[in-house]
This record gives sequence, C-alpha cells and structure tokens, in this order.
Amino acid sequence: MPKAAVIMGSDSDFDVVQKCLNALDEFNIDYDAKVISAHRTPHKAVKFAEDAEKNGYEVIITAAGKAAHLGGIMAGVSPLPVIGIPIKTSLEGGMDSLLSIVQMPSGVPVATVGVNGAENAGILAAEMLSIKYPDLREKIKAKKQAMAKQVEAKDQAIQAKVSK
Amino acid sequence: MPKAAVIMGSDSDFDVVQKCLNALDEFNIDYDAKVISAHRTPHKAVKFAEDAEKNGYEVIITAAGKAAHLGGIMAGVSPLPVIGIPIKTSLEGGMDSLLSIVQMPSGVPVATVGVNGAENAGILAAEMLSIKYPDLREKIKAKKQAMAKQVEAKDQAIQAKVSK
Amino acid sequence: MPKAAVIMGSDSDFDVVQKCLNALDEFNIDYDAKVISAHRTPHKAVKFAEDAEKNGYEVIITAAGKAAHLGGIMAGVSPLPVIGIPIKTSLEGGMDSLLSIVQMPSGVPVATVGVNGAENAGILAAEMLSIKYPDLREKIKAKKQAMAKQVEAKDQAIQAKVSK
Amino acid sequence: MPKAAVIMGSDSDFDVVQKCLNALDEFNIDYDAKVISAHRTPHKAVKFAEDAEKNGYEVIITAAGKAAHLGGIMAGVSPLPVIGIPIKTSLEGGMDSLLSIVQMPSGVPVATVGVNGAENAGILAAEMLSIKYPDLREKIKAKKQAMAKQVEAKDQAIQAKVSK
Amino acid sequence: MPKAAVIMGSDSDFDVVQKCLNALDEFNIDYDAKVISAHRTPHKAVKFAEDAEKNGYEVIITAAGKAAHLGGIMAGVSPLPVIGIPIKTSLEGGMDSLLSIVQMPSGVPVATVGVNGAENAGILAAEMLSIKYPDLREKIKAKKQAMAKQVEAKDQAIQAKVSK
Amino acid sequence: MPKAAVIMGSDSDFDVVQKCLNALDEFNIDYDAKVISAHRTPHKAVKFAEDAEKNGYEVIITAAGKAAHLGGIMAGVSPLPVIGIPIKTSLEGGMDSLLSIVQMPSGVPVATVGVNGAENAGILAAEMLSIKYPDLREKIKAKKQAMAKQVEAKDQAIQAKVSK
Amino acid sequence: MPKAAVIMGSDSDFDVVQKCLNALDEFNIDYDAKVISAHRTPHKAVKFAEDAEKNGYEVIITAAGKAAHLGGIMAGVSPLPVIGIPIKTSLEGGMDSLLSIVQMPSGVPVATVGVNGAENAGILAAEMLSIKYPDLREKIKAKKQAMAKQVEAKDQAIQAKVSK
Amino acid sequence: MPKAAVIMGSDSDFDVVQKCLNALDEFNIDYDAKVISAHRTPHKAVKFAEDAEKNGYEVIITAAGKAAHLGGIMAGVSPLPVIGIPIKTSLEGGMDSLLSIVQMPSGVPVATVGVNGAENAGILAAEMLSIKYPDLREKIKAKKQAMAKQVEAKDQAIQAKVSK
Repeated sequence: MPKAAVIMGSDSDFDVVQKCLNALDEFNIDYDAKVISAHRTPHKAVKFAEDAEKNGYEVIITAAGKAAHLGGIMAGVSPLPVIGIPIKTSLEGGMDSLLSIVQMPSGVPVATVGVNGAENAGILAAEMLSIKYPDLREKIKAKKQAMAKQVEAKDQAIQAKVSK
Repeated sequence: MPKAAVIMGSDSDFDVVQKCLNALDEFNIDYDAKVISAHRTPHKAVKFAEDAEKNGYEVIITAAGKAAHLGGIMAGVSPLPVIGIPIKTSLEGGMDSLLSIVQMPSGVPVATVGVNGAENAGILAAEMLSIKYPDLREKIKAKKQAMAKQVEAKDQAIQAKVSK
Repeated sequence: MPKAAVIMGSDSDFDVVQKCLNALDEFNIDYDAKVISAHRTPHKAVKFAEDAEKNGYEVIITAAGKAAHLGGIMAGVSPLPVIGIPIKTSLEGGMDSLLSIVQMPSGVPVATVGVNGAENAGILAAEMLSIKYPDLREKIKAKKQAMAKQVEAKDQAIQAKVSK
Repeated sequence: MPKAAVIMGSDSDFDVVQKCLNALDEFNIDYDAKVISAHRTPHKAVKFAEDAEKNGYEVIITAAGKAAHLGGIMAGVSPLPVIGIPIKTSLEGGMDSLLSIVQMPSGVPVATVGVNGAENAGILAAEMLSIKYPDLREKIKAKKQAMAKQVEAKDQAIQAKVSK
Repeated sequence: MPKAAVIMGSDSDFDVVQKCLNALDEFNIDYDAKVISAHRTPHKAVKFAEDAEKNGYEVIITAAGKAAHLGGIMAGVSPLPVIGIPIKTSLEGGMDSLLSIVQMPSGVPVATVGVNGAENAGILAAEMLSIKYPDLREKIKAKKQAMAKQVEAKDQAIQAKVSK
Repeated sequence: MPKAAVIMGSDSDFDVVQKCLNALDEFNIDYDAKVISAHRTPHKAVKFAEDAEKNGYEVIITAAGKAAHLGGIMAGVSPLPVIGIPIKTSLEGGMDSLLSIVQMPSGVPVATVGVNGAENAGILAAEMLSIKYPDLREKIKAKKQAMAKQVEAKDQAIQAKVSK
Repeated sequence: MPKAAVIMGSDSDFDVVQKCLNALDEFNIDYDAKVISAHRTPHKAVKFAEDAEKNGYEVIITAAGKAAHLGGIMAGVSPLPVIGIPIKTSLEGGMDSLLSIVQMPSGVPVATVGVNGAENAGILAAEMLSIKYPDLREKIKAKKQAMAKQVEAKDQAIQAKVSK
Repeated sequence: MPKAAVIMGSDSDFDVVQKCLNALDEFNIDYDAKVISAHRTPHKAVKFAEDAEKNGYEVIITAAGKAAHLGGIMAGVSPLPVIGIPIKTSLEGGMDSLLSIVQMPSGVPVATVGVNGAENAGILAAEMLSIKYPDLREKIKAKKQAMAKQVEAKDQAIQAKVSK
C-alpha cells in the first residue's frame, strides 16, 4: 500500500491541509500527517527527510506559508519526490509562499501546486504513485470522470436557472 | 525502461527545454520531445494527452510561456502526472507563465517548477519515476552526492580566492 | 437574431457572469449559458468550440479564474471571436486569471476585459455583433447616452450634497 | 470591403504596430494607420472617435504604453468595438500599459490583447469583422490550419534534432 | 479667493473624496465638486477641462479607479496643474488605478498622490496655491505644527500606556 | 522670476534629471540643481528644506531611487510643494522607487510623476508656478500646441510610410 | 542592562508593535516606546536619532507603513543598528512598506523583517544585543528550544487529531 | 577581534558578495567566506550553523537567490544574528529572493537588506558588532562622515556642471 508523508510548517495550516488528507483518503493512500517547522525544528526536519525513504514513504507533501522553506529542505535532503503547497498569506495573497517554494535552484525541484492547492497536492501525489500502483491510475481516471459528471450536472443546473 | 514525453509549446522554447532533455539523458530515461501548441494545435494536444498512457509514457513534461495552457490541457485529459515549466517572458520575468501553470483549479494539478526550470523538471520526472524504478532512486542519491561535491569544490575555490 | 455563447468554468462564477447575461438581455442578444471546464471537461470544451459556429453562435464569451484556460481553448479551436472575463481570486486580486487570459501567444487572441468585468464582456459582444446588426449599433449609442445621463444625475446629486 | 482604424499613441510604437498592419494585410482588411495621442492631441482623439463610424471604420485598434488611455477614449466616444494593444514598458514589462487598458469601468469595454500583442489585435479585428464578412471567417479557418501546419513542421524539426 | 475643481469619476468615489473636500475647507479654498466620467461622459470631461481656466479654477483635482483616465484627460486639455487620486480597487489594492494615473507620457504630467490619498490631494492643492496666496502658506505651516503636536500627544499617550 | 530647487539623491541620477532641467530652461524657470542624499546627508537635507522657502525657492523637485525618501523629507520639513521623480531600478523596473515616493501618509503629500518622468516633473513645476506667473501659463499653452503639432507631423510621416 | 528604542510612525501601529515589546520583555531588554513620525515630526526624528547613542540605546527598532521612511532616517543619522518593521497596508498587503524600508541605498542599511513582523524585530534585537550580552545568547537558545517543544506538542496534537 | 561568517549559496553570487567582503575589510572585521548551499549541501548548512557560535563567529551573513533558504536555515539553527542578502534574479528583478528571505515566520528573524545589497550587509554586520566593539562604532561614524563628504563633493561637481 502506498504511503505519503504530509508535513505542515504550522498547525495553523491544518484547515488547508485537511483537503489534501481528504484527497489521499479518497485514493486510499496511507499517510502520516505531521507538524514540522523548517525554522523552529530544523533538525527534526532534516532528520525526517533523511529517514523518509527508509520509513516507507514514497512521496513527501509539504505545506508552508510566507518564506516557505519546508519543501526545499525536504527536497534537499531526501531523494523522494516532494510536493509543495504554498499557504495563502496577506502579501499579494500568498505570492511570498509561492515564490519561496517554486523558484528552487537547479538540481533540487519541488513540485509546486497553486496557493492553498491542498487537494491538488493530494491528487498529484496519487498521480505520481500511480506510476507504480496501477489501481491508483484507475482511480484517477474514475475521479476525472466523476468530476466531468459533476460539471455536467452544474451545467444542467445553470442552464435550467438561466432559461427560467 | 521508463519513458517521458517532453512537450514544448513552441520551438523557441527548445534552448530551455534542452536542459530538461540533458537531465533525462543523465538518468537514462527514454523520452520523446515534441512541439505541440495548446492554442495552435489544440486537437493534437488533446489527442496526445488521450494516448499518452497507452503510448507508454509514464510522465508528461510541458514547457510553455505567457498564457501557458499546455500543462493544463495535458493534466485535464491524461491521468499521468504532468510537470509544467514556465518559460521566461518579459512580463515581470515570466510571472504570466508561472501563474498560468501553477494556479490550476482543484482536481487538475500541474507539478510546477520555477521559471525556466527545465533541468529541475527532468530531475522531478526522475524522482517521480523512482517510485517505481529503484535504480533511478539510486541515481538520484548519486546526483545529490555529486552536487554536494561540486558545491564543496566551489567552496574550496572561493576560500582560496578570498584568502589570497 | 444574434446569438452568443456564454461559458463559465465553474458554477461559482455565475454571480459574476449574471451581469454579462443582463447586458445581453438589455441588447436583446440571444444566448446560451453553460458550465464547461477547460480542465475537468476538456473534451466537451473542444467539442463545444468545434461546433460553436455551426450551432449559430457568433461570439463566445468565457469566464474563468486562476489558471484560466477556457478562453484560450475556445480561441484555439473556434474561428469565432472569443471574449475572456478574468474572475477575481485572492492572488493579487485576480492577477493570475487576468494574465492567464490576456497573455495569449501570437495567432490566437482572446479579447480580454477587466477582472470580473462581466457587464463589459456583454457590451463588447454587442459592439462586435453591431458590425453586422445595425440595430445593435443604435442600442449601443442609446446606452452610451443613458450612461451619460446617469452620470449627469449623479453629478447633480453630489453637487447638491456638497453645497449643502 | 471591411475597414479598420489603427491608432498608435506615439510613432515609437510603430515597430510593434507593424505586426498588426501585416495581419490586416494578410486578411485583406483595409485600414488607416494614424498617430493620435490621447494626451497630446486629445481633441483630435475625441474627434476621430466621433467620426469613426461615419468614416466607414468598423473596428478601432489602438496601441499605447504606460498610462495608456487611447483605447479608453475611443471606447468612451465611439460605439465601434475598440481593441487595445498594451505596449511593453520597463515597469514590470508593461504592467502599467496592460492595467491602464484592460481595467476599464463598467459600460465601456476595451478588448485587450497581450503586451505587444499587435498581431493578435489584427487577428481579433478579423474575427470581429468575420461576424459580418463570411470570407474573413474562411480566411481565419485557413490561417488556423496554416498555423497548425507550421507547428507540425517545427515538431518534425525538433524531433529530428533531438533524435540525432 | 483661490478655487479648485474636484472631479470624481464616479459618485461611489465620494466617501474617499470627502476627505479632500474637508482639507480644502480647512484651508478655506473654494471648490466645486463634480462627477464627470472620462469614459461615460468624455465630451463633458473635455469641455470641463477646456473651460476650467476661464471658469476661475486654479487647480484641478481628480479621483478615479481602475483604468483611471480622468486626470490624464484633464491634463491633456487644460494648462492647469492636475492632481490625481488613485482610488483603491481589489486588483493589488489599487495598483491599476495608481499606474493608470502616475505613468503619464512625457509632456503631460499628473501630480499623483497615494492610493485613496484624498486628504493629501487637498493639501497638495493648498501647497500649489500657496505659491500665489501667502496666507495659504501660513496655514500650511500652522497645519504642520498642529500635526506635529498631535503626534507629540500620541507619543505621550503611548509612553503612558507602555510604562503602565 | 520663479525659482525651483532640483535635488537628486545621487549624481548617478543626473542623466535622468537633466531632462527636468531642460524643461525648466524651456520655461525660463530659474533653478539650483543639487545632490543631497536623504540617507547620507540627512542633516543637509533637513537644513535645505528648512531654508528653501526663505532662499526663494517656490517649488522643490526631488529625484531618488529604491527606498526613495528624499521627497518625503522635503515635504515633511518645508511648506513648499514637493515633486517626486522615482528613478528606475531593476526591481520591477522602479516599483520600489515609485511606492516609496507616492504612498506618503496623510498630511504630507509628494506630487509624484512616473518612473524616470523627469521632463514631466519640470512641466508640473511650471504648471504649479503658472498659478502665480501668468506668462508661464501662456508658455504651457504654447507647449501643448507645439506638442500637438509634433504629433500631427509624426502622424503624417506614419501615414506616408504606411501608404507606401 | 541592554536598552532598545522602539519607534512607531503612528499610534495606529501600536497593536502590531506590542508584539515587539512583548518579545523585548521576554528577553528582559529595557526599552522606550515612542511615536515619532518621519514626515510629521521630522526634526524630532532627526534629533532622536542624533541622541540615541548617547541616551544609552544600543539598537533602534522602527515600525512604519506605506512610504515608510522612519527606519531610513534613523539609519541615516545614527550609527546604531536599525531594525525596520514594515506595517501591513492594503497595497499588495504591505509591499509599499516593505520596499520603502528594505531597498535602502548603499551605505545605510536597515535590517528589515517581514511585513508586520514585530515579534521578529524584538528577537532580532535580542540576537544583535547577544553579541555583547552573553545571558541574552542563552535566552535565545532557550527560546529556540521552547519553540521546538511547542511545535512538537502541536505535532502530537495534529497526529492525534488525524489518526482519530 | 570580531569575526563574521559570509556564506553564499552559489559561487555565481561571488561578484555581489565581494562588496560585502570589501565592507568587512574596511571595518577590519575578520571573516570566512564560504559556499554552502541550503539545498545541495543541507547537512553542511545545518552543521555550519550548529558550530558557528563555538567557532567564534559573532554574526552570519548569507547571500542567496530565487527560493533563497540559506538565511532561514542559519537563523533556524544558530542563535547568532543572521543577515540575508537577496540576490537579483530575472523574476521581477529579485522579488523571489527578497520575499523568500524577509518573510520569515515569527520566532526566526533574518535581518534582510535590499536586493544585491551586499555592501549594506557588511555595514549592518559592523553596526551589530559595534554594540560590543566600541572602535567599530567610531569607524561607522567616520564612514558616515566620509559618505557625507563624498555626496558634498558630488554636489559641487553637479552644481559646477549645471551652471556651466
């Protein structure tokens, strides 16, 4: 069974991160959710990254705001793919978080999703894991179809509303 | 052998994309590199995405600039993980490309790297594929060590220079 | 009778789009309003664009937020003029939506209005259609005069208020 | 024969505007190209807008930089559809021009293309005019096919280059 | 007695503009406050600017938001000094208004104050008029002293609060 | 004879400021041009501002870049109207300079022109001074007419070029 | 006993600054908190900076918003290290304050913390003072450990919450 | 004798960092200059920070670009004051570097200077160290006087130039 690590820089990020956990649940991906701060618990962050592979994680998802270094530390230390969720802030709506995560130097990528894009981080993890786990691939296809149906239903609702 | 699709929106993006191909070569990841425009060849883009999985690709890497929709189309159609490289432009140095790629709506993630971050896109692809292919994981670890050694060498060179 | 397609990427955009529909109603322009997502229903988006001309639409109006590709897909597939409404988001107040829509590559324009500028999208559609339909031209002139009168009335009200 | 007005705020914008004229030539759209400054020749700008319709223009294309008001004045006075080309500047690569043109108040739209998007302005004019002129519609379809072929050729060239 | 024209693009700007009127009242500067839209009443805007000098105004203060062209039109037509107040909007907090006003082309300046800086616009008008009217100069000096005293009082209050 | 003070924060700003001096020369406005740094010579800056009125200056023009405080200090100390020229920098093309100058707190306005808008600063000074000096008003009107003629000539040149 | 000066540009900044005072209290650093405006009380600002060293302050902390010059004036006049806290505003969430403080010209640094980063300003002051006062160094180490424990506790809480 | 650590994230930052070393030389502050990458040599970065205090450094200066995490790691691990120099990049001229450094979370400040502000970082280090080392305070005062004299000389040169 695939397993992801979901690390948030602060427990105040939990409401956003919850959507990521929901997505992982939806795909039946096992995970551990933890609060580790790149700046307040740097040794723990490095240690976690060092051990992540041998602890059975296959992907690391990080969420952090402002000068968001959590994903970068994980990616610098661990060979696992690392996903970064920029948390919305008041500075240009999260531009600080986004740039701190996505603009990584050559050699150390962080797979960045949109600001507060926690659900997408979970889905992206599923897509990465689906390279190895064929059933995840099928679930992703099913989700795409379900999303299309939802849009279809909303389309019908709007058309009904407008033609009234 | 793992195989990636590398799609650029314009042949003018090739010089940047070359660094991605080099990274894939370095990891011995097979790839096809193609020019497909989300706007000028939309049907081909959709068709490519539809067939990508059955054509044996395990990850799709896209590079596009300005209102960069290539990654979004791929991610909307294909269940494969999709990586997006924002190409540098003159508007705030590529902010248009970056936001057009990273700010994807819920349900359809694109794993975004930094502006012109083509090498990182290749490495990220390797990291994703390493979930399935253990030898790639070893190569990533080796690359990390090699990078560290390069930095070490540069550190020595700078220290020598400064102490002169 | 002229006919427009009004496509929104999500039903959450409807409150903004309503102002566009009101403007079209004001000009007696027939329209269909639909929810089609460039990312969640990409095939439907392409199909809609392919058929738009033969289905009698003369202009396509799109509304989408964040990495807003809906207008771009329509413009890539259909030869009809395409109008794009960037929906306000929290990132710099909709800068992501705006840049994703307006910064289209050469060859595939999207006629972009301001963030949440749905009424303007409806009026712009009327102006485009007035190239062919002379009565629309007259209605536009009448609207301009009505707007001027409204401003005049507000001017009187403010002057009365201030001189009190 | 359809006729467009192409107005630039300064003769220094001509090199960019030339691409718009080329596009109009390609579609056999007649045009007059003029230098009219919203700020240095405001009366002429208003006069031009007042007379544009009766002088036989069916669309007005404007190009201006920085605090770019030319499109706004045209759109405020004339009932014709107005297209705005933001000219690149040094402030965030033309963000001042873009925002000054696209963020029009309700009631007075300017159909905005990307920064320096002069070719797209010409094509957008053709698309608008194609509502009335069926042969323009056919030319637009042909151009789309030609663009697709060009991309196809570039795709072949890149594939050949890479596989070498 | 000095006289200013205070023009707002929309009556929705009145609450901000009120602070400008208060400042002018404080300096005993006579004024007319009017709603004139550069885009909805362009002829009136030009006419007002043409007549402003002979109607006895010595400075024109304008307030407008988004693609804010009101100051630019006034400055293009009238030889009087023109002050521009950018009204706060949701796009980056008024960056569109600010850039549309301040980035005027060479030859046609608009004296720009900060976003929603209506009080400062009134004070700036007083400073300009004080070039001719010595009593205004004295009032400005008095206001500066009064402001300094207010700050002094607040300083005392904070010190008292902190030392408690 | 009217007299202006032109203060630049660094001699490296001189090439930009020269255009301001040229404009003042054109209007026959006497001036002193000085290098005073708000940060490196703060006492001199305050002293200059304190004495500016009694030294016969009627307006103070300042030019500074980055965290540009020169205009703010002048405006804080002197009752004279103060004009601020933001000097272009590499950060977003001078956004730092612009915001540091224009976003002044209530009570202390700086009349801000566009980035590198030195000519406009000179013209704005002339417009301010024309409140008192009627001949300056006439020169401003003449300049507006001359600018209009120049645009007219450029219009003719472009039309000739295009019709060839 | 070490002593800091904490200067805010307006008493409206006090709620933010309070967090700085709390941090200083936590480290047992003596301080005076004052309201001094760079623009409304410039002479007092300069005087304060001139006397700061001889009045026994060892570091100056400033807080200001918008065109925030307070830190710059302090740093220009006093040889003491100066810390700048940019206060959040509505323009891009405080980008104006941040750039006005951090982008100081060569020769006159202001040690800038994040927008509304008042607690960090207090801690940074403690770190600076710890160069001289060894007990402060120990308190900083203790605070780091306490922060790590808090994160640890939150980690436990989140893990408990998620595993439920 | 005071001693600083100067750490750059890449040897490509050396040309900028050189100005910091020159400033430290000017103040006779001993230093070690090293290349340590937060992402490529994370363990070395953490180790360096852990040992910095006991190795005799009294301040740590860091320089890094893009997603610049070097200062943050140092500040997270070491109790020493940490200075951050954002290196200029092509994205908005270094906005990514600046925000990644300055927007640190509560508890872990990095004293940030302007983009490429290496000389200021050196001077800020001197100012911090001058809390303990009185002779540094005197040198800072002397430098301020020297800077004032340089500005004075430039002022004379500009005045001579203009009056010619």
